[in-house]
Amino acid sequence: MKNLLVAQSGGPTAAINSTLCGVLEKAREIGFSKIYGAKFGIKGLLKRDIIDLDVIKKSDIKTLKLTPASVLGSCRYKLKDIEDAKEEYEKIVEILREFDVGYVVYIGGNDSMDTVEKFSRYLKLNDILDIKIIGAPKTIDNDLEKTDHCPGFGSAAKYVATTFKELERDSAVYDIKAVTLVETMGRDAGWLTAASSLSRIDGSPGPSLIYCCEVPFSVEKFLSDVEEKLKEKPNVLVALSEGLKDKNKRPISADYNEEKKDMFGHSNNAGVAKFLEEVVRKNMGVKVRSVELNISQRAASHIASLVDIEESFRVGEKAVELLKEGRSGLMVNIIRKGEYVVEYGFVEAVEVANKVKTMPKDFISSSYSDVSEVAIKYLKPLIKGEVNLEYVDGVPRFYRLDQK
Amino acid sequence: MKNLLVAQSGGPTAAINSTLCGVLEKAREIGFSKIYGAKFGIKGLLKRDIIDLDVIKKSDIKTLKLTPASVLGSCRYKLKDIEDAKEEYEKIVEILREFDVGYVVYIGGNDSMDTVEKFSRYLKLNDILDIKIIGAPKTIDNDLEKTDHCPGFGSAAKYVATTFKELERDSAVYDIKAVTLVETMGRDAGWLTAASSLSRIDGSPGPSLIYCCEVPFSVEKFLSDVEEKLKEKPNVLVALSEGLKDKNKRPISADYNEEKKDMFGHSNNAGVAKFLEEVVRKNMGVKVRSVELNISQRAASHIASLVDIEESFRVGEKAVELLKEGRSGLMVNIIRKGEYVVEYGFVEAVEVANKVKTMPKDFISSSYSDVSEVAIKYLKPLIKGEVNLEYVDGVPRFYRLDQK
Repeated sequence: MKNLLVAQSGGPTAAINSTLCGVLEKAREIGFSKIYGAKFGIKGLLKRDIIDLDVIKKSDIKTLKLTPASVLGSCRYKLKDIEDAKEEYEKIVEILREFDVGYVVYIGGNDSMDTVEKFSRYLKLNDILDIKIIGAPKTIDNDLEKTDHCPGFGSAAKYVATTFKELERDSAVYDIKAVTLVETMGRDAGWLTAASSLSRIDGSPGPSLIYCCEVPFSVEKFLSDVEEKLKEKPNVLVALSEGLKDKNKRPISADYNEEKKDMFGHSNNAGVAKFLEEVVRKNMGVKVRSVELNISQRAASHIASLVDIEESFRVGEKAVELLKEGRSGLMVNIIRKGEYVVEYGFVEAVEVANKVKTMPKDFISSSYSDVSEVAIKYLKPLIKGEVNLEYVDGVPRFYRLDQK
Repeated sequence: MKNLLVAQSGGPTAAINSTLCGVLEKAREIGFSKIYGAKFGIKGLLKRDIIDLDVIKKSDIKTLKLTPASVLGSCRYKLKDIEDAKEEYEKIVEILREFDVGYVVYIGGNDSMDTVEKFSRYLKLNDILDIKIIGAPKTIDNDLEKTDHCPGFGSAAKYVATTFKELERDSAVYDIKAVTLVETMGRDAGWLTAASSLSRIDGSPGPSLIYCCEVPFSVEKFLSDVEEKLKEKPNVLVALSEGLKDKNKRPISADYNEEKKDMFGHSNNAGVAKFLEEVVRKNMGVKVRSVELNISQRAASHIASLVDIEESFRVGEKAVELLKEGRSGLMVNIIRKGEYVVEYGFVEAVEVANKVKTMPKDFISSSYSDVSEVAIKYLKPLIKGEVNLEYVDGVPRFYRLDQK
């Protein structure tokens, strides 16, 4: 049996190493002679930056499963079209043969599925039958097509829901009018913003307003929405998608950035929350602050979703099973069956590559300033369960390749 | 026995409700006839916004202890000097008498200790012997004098250490040169910034550089420090105090804000991390991003320190014990005895009011760009232990006064 190689690509998540663990455990069970890891995704592969994953012991799996960010390193590197970069494809095949690799698992998002699609197409076009590649999905953005949801999203959503629950408590302590604007990640889809609604699960107030980037955003309507909510209670907490755009598809922070562009010769990337903070201050004269949830959304392993970690592991196992069946050019997917059972299936990588799945329109309330019950029903099972992290002197223990 | 009244003041923390629980439990044990809570601190008291704390059942204590932010509400309100506002002091006494209150616990920071000091002085000056007041400390900033450390700090420090540990993993995934700048709270003292060092406890890399506001900050030295670290490894993670100042005590973000001031008629409060992000981008041409840890530092109950929560509870109990002994005008303090045992004592509130305790110079490394072993030894015990939070459908259960 030929060797297996696994690599991680794209932005980190809290669950991407759990998928790697699933790959490792299943590959060891099946008995591939060697299991290799390419460092820094396809970019490292092209530099022969390949390590024997024997370094990851059976006893490390528990810790690695709950370690955030790609332990093998990652890249943002897209293969050129086959006809434009034949040599690169040839080089990949050459390196894989050098290591006697016949099976590749590529863990990543829609750019990575583009790699899976292109490379498998190259193999087919050139009648190379002894190398197969399968993609395993991951993204905190939950925006991959043809899967019910994405590994990594549940943990990010649980972080967002928990943080909104805490911020709601924090924002309610004073009896003066105040607006707290919280920006979540998601440039093209509002899934993580919608997850803020889960902070209301047990009857807690949660955010007063939720704006997702699937529907056009109007600054005027936003101001009047906030005004209305301030009549009901003094503290208004607002969830905002990073990628909010107006009806002309213009990013909401555009004006703001434009005026500043020259200060340092370029935009300073102030986001939508910071922009709207100034708008509220200028127009409403109430206390206002903005919070950008930032990198913790994808790195906060300490509040990972157990459902997400376990599913991500199974997705890794499934990728290896598909390779063993001789399949190639596919991405593992998660299929929801009833409430709440999932099955693991597959889809052609070409159906996922470079595509973005936004939230269905019926996930958003008709007011455009909240999510619907349908959305909450969909999201709720994904954040369930807490992980049993090991702490050393008060901080979580994580796995590092360079630790020994 | 006269009644007891408790109030919370100043900024929220993850442990301030644990102190309230300590007050409640001890007061119930001792058997005060009534235990009242003033909503929104002294401000609510002055409006007779007072509730009977019988609403908080014995069975609610476990949840309330781990609920972030002041459940009674808070205020930022300073009493005027006695001679300038005699009527206000008289009104407080009148309201307390109306509710037959003889014992007051005021939970808060150095502004709140000013309230304790002034009000107790007023009582003494006017021979009012049937009302006593004791302060219970809280602040995530850890900057109160005459106490080894402050309730609320350990939980904030654990959040900072855990987050830095996760961000270090996140920042290490790509093999290209990149700088991640992380700003922690603390306008006048660098305690929370120093806590980022605890992410190294088990041999993890943690931040490459730590800049605390106790020593002057030089943008030039910062750039050369980062340059040096980038020679050692591609990913440099930096911890920055919100309150960094140059040798002329000028806030590091000053220039930046000045140039922008007119855009919306005032400063947009961009912090030190955002400012230095632009400086790095302009001067070094490497990938750079900034993160402001923001409100979660004081609200993240889900990663609270067990040591902090338990100590905060004991501080509340101690406040009631001191009142029972007939004392007034004091603040409870924590005294460290050996490694790691604490005792609870007291100090005159006047010694704490309006003062700020910065980190001792020997807590900071001679390079000014890290903390010393002494600092780590001091900080380490404060973040130990994890809390056993109850989760409902994947999000923490918190207590709210309006929940029933």
